[in-house]
Amino acid sequence: MLRASVPTNIAANPANHKQITSGETRPRVVIIGAGFAGLETARALSGAEVDVVLLDRKNHHCFQPLLYQVATAALSPADVAWPIRSIVSDQDNVIVIMADVCAVDTTSKIVRTKEGDSFHYDYLVIATGAYSSYFNHPEWAQYAPGLKTIEDATRIRAKILIGFERAEKGTSEAEIQKFMTFVVVGGGPTGVELAGSIAEIARSVLVRDFRRINPQSARIVLAEAGPRILSTFPTDLSDYTEKTLTDVGVEVITGRAVTSCDEQGVSLAGGERIETACVLWAAGVKASPAAEWLGVEGDRAGRVPVNEFLLIPGSSNVFVIGDTASVRGGGEPVPGLAPAAKQMGRHVGRHITAIVAGAKPRQSFVYRHQGDLATIGRKAAVVAFSRTKLRGFLGWLVWSVAHIYFLIGARNRAVVAINWVWEYITFQRGARLIS
Amino acid sequence: MLRASVPTNIAANPANHKQITSGETRPRVVIIGAGFAGLETARALSGAEVDVVLLDRKNHHCFQPLLYQVATAALSPADVAWPIRSIVSDQDNVIVIMADVCAVDTTSKIVRTKEGDSFHYDYLVIATGAYSSYFNHPEWAQYAPGLKTIEDATRIRAKILIGFERAEKGTSEAEIQKFMTFVVVGGGPTGVELAGSIAEIARSVLVRDFRRINPQSARIVLAEAGPRILSTFPTDLSDYTEKTLTDVGVEVITGRAVTSCDEQGVSLAGGERIETACVLWAAGVKASPAAEWLGVEGDRAGRVPVNEFLLIPGSSNVFVIGDTASVRGGGEPVPGLAPAAKQMGRHVGRHITAIVAGAKPRQSFVYRHQGDLATIGRKAAVVAFSRTKLRGFLGWLVWSVAHIYFLIGARNRAVVAINWVWEYITFQRGARLIS
Repeated sequence: MLRASVPTNIAANPANHKQITSGETRPRVVIIGAGFAGLETARALSGAEVDVVLLDRKNHHCFQPLLYQVATAALSPADVAWPIRSIVSDQDNVIVIMADVCAVDTTSKIVRTKEGDSFHYDYLVIATGAYSSYFNHPEWAQYAPGLKTIEDATRIRAKILIGFERAEKGTSEAEIQKFMTFVVVGGGPTGVELAGSIAEIARSVLVRDFRRINPQSARIVLAEAGPRILSTFPTDLSDYTEKTLTDVGVEVITGRAVTSCDEQGVSLAGGERIETACVLWAAGVKASPAAEWLGVEGDRAGRVPVNEFLLIPGSSNVFVIGDTASVRGGGEPVPGLAPAAKQMGRHVGRHITAIVAGAKPRQSFVYRHQGDLATIGRKAAVVAFSRTKLRGFLGWLVWSVAHIYFLIGARNRAVVAINWVWEYITFQRGARLIS
Repeated sequence: MLRASVPTNIAANPANHKQITSGETRPRVVIIGAGFAGLETARALSGAEVDVVLLDRKNHHCFQPLLYQVATAALSPADVAWPIRSIVSDQDNVIVIMADVCAVDTTSKIVRTKEGDSFHYDYLVIATGAYSSYFNHPEWAQYAPGLKTIEDATRIRAKILIGFERAEKGTSEAEIQKFMTFVVVGGGPTGVELAGSIAEIARSVLVRDFRRINPQSARIVLAEAGPRILSTFPTDLSDYTEKTLTDVGVEVITGRAVTSCDEQGVSLAGGERIETACVLWAAGVKASPAAEWLGVEGDRAGRVPVNEFLLIPGSSNVFVIGDTASVRGGGEPVPGLAPAAKQMGRHVGRHITAIVAGAKPRQSFVYRHQGDLATIGRKAAVVAFSRTKLRGFLGWLVWSVAHIYFLIGARNRAVVAINWVWEYITFQRGARLIS
């Protein structure tokens, strides 16, 4: 329990410690995960008569939609990350604790962490997100990193940049070709953005920096198992995206799944083998192990089924939201997008606020789809709102403005905007760091 | 040899490979290390009739004078680093290879790398810098990281930030005090800058972000073995610095060396023991192992003795420069500062240019001291030029302008300037990332 593991009575030296300001009688809401869903829950609980304990393994909230720009040397990690405690510093009823949750006991209403701490809750909100999924081939993970965290992004950045470094000192044609081949698996927005961005690095950014190799001759493959890339977008935008990617030098392969993946490359259904030192994984996700913690059966992607109030079946105080939840009931399935996660977080925050105030529980959660966006590269993006479709430069402008708007903090917005303008003008990238 | 390990005849596919443009008959200059000294050598060889091979373990040049700002969450790694091959991309006679040198054979004139490559040279320039030195206690390194590389800086950043995170969930007074105590060993410019900057984080940046601890009550100790901090500066500037540090809450301890260092803290001469989870080392440096490679005897700090042309004794083609060199001859010893490294690099580059052009070897190297600078924190720095001494806000302005001026690249200058203005106004720091 928080009071046991983090006792309030250690405040022997008043200069050194503030009391937890909350009264002991207020219900405690424990939120696990400070991604889009968890953070939005905390914000929606602002002003509620509760104590909020926000737990996360990291000290920072990561703006995942721009992670691919860290992975491709356009932005620095800190440009897309923000300290969680800074974000909620104005909200007196929230305490942030950096902790790695490993178990939940719904009978005793306790969350346990790997560090050995335990936190009592009255309401629990699980918003622990998703991981890359390798279709029953977890051994592929070591060769084909996915893009979910800041650490993933810097690892991928190093992998891409080291490819060119190794090629420059390569001793055989085959070796050089292998280091200059990049395969992105999965044709969703992240895969499209990674492939387009690597093409840009090879075609423009690095072009004058090597003496023995010609970076423009790099081979960039985007492999999608389904019949078309960007399958959640209207067909014509998929076609446009495929054409634009092809124009900038990406080989788009559809309808062929990856059948094996190792240190030397990948094989595709139908037999094609691609020798490469750099495979990146954007093909699928699996929910965090929340289903295991709760002892419930997850769906195919490991997501926890929740009812129309985002509660687990039979419970009135355990919510699961964001990429970890599978919302049952009528209507379309809720996609694993940032706006969906935020909507769920807001709904649960307001729901709890109403209950503790003695009001009726709120109405059911209804997902409102705001649109799909994906950027292809310099000056080209596709945007599908409910009635509007945009592509090309206009799509790219809308995409840029939307992403800067949703970034947290004035500094991040300014620095990201400057980086983008600078890159647009100079064809350079500011974060070409192997570390 | 480069031609053996990276043969020119692999250019079977002209689209894929450029020929090395150099003629085979030009002398080859191999430079090891792309710090201030090595990079300046390469630049000074621009236009010379030589082929330059620039080797570095990293892909980036690091602007060490601002590393402490990465370590204290003010700047991102990429703000103080720049890809080496970008810096020399306009200089056709330079090829950059990322490689980790492990041996030099001066008889066969070959440099060997850990990756198994070897590079023939006609002229060799060793500019491999220095490491943190622990006064015959290498085991202290694991507890007290020094600040020499980007990786050191992000490790120190995590160490400082994790201290406050652990304190926030601490269960005993002693534990919390230990995590909120920070000891910087060594009162040179780096130590002063680290201590001042940690004080700023504790006093201003984090102040509203914690609920159980009060970051302002953190204990920050700067421990110097000598009689005063900033010993290379005029005495009155040392006094001013000590007073200013004390005013912002740093405990300055002089005249007492560290006698032991472990996971739980440090002990000082005279018996004082400080329990802390965060010791940072800025107390001394040791040259890179160039003396071993060359089979010569280094001085007390492991530096290679060189003559007035920066050549090792008895050689006419092996130069050692920067923090790795100990310049013999009349005059003051050359300090381990960026301007000194650059001056040596420029001298050697011009010397080789003259020799290959058939001109007389240049005159002896003479170091010109340009001044000493150190920043203490927000609005305060000390600057000692030959006839001018500055302190306080004016010193800080001069320090800021000088450092932005010497940064490489317009983007870095703009981003660093924006970060500083933003931090100055908001008391926030943009890179509070534990990763």
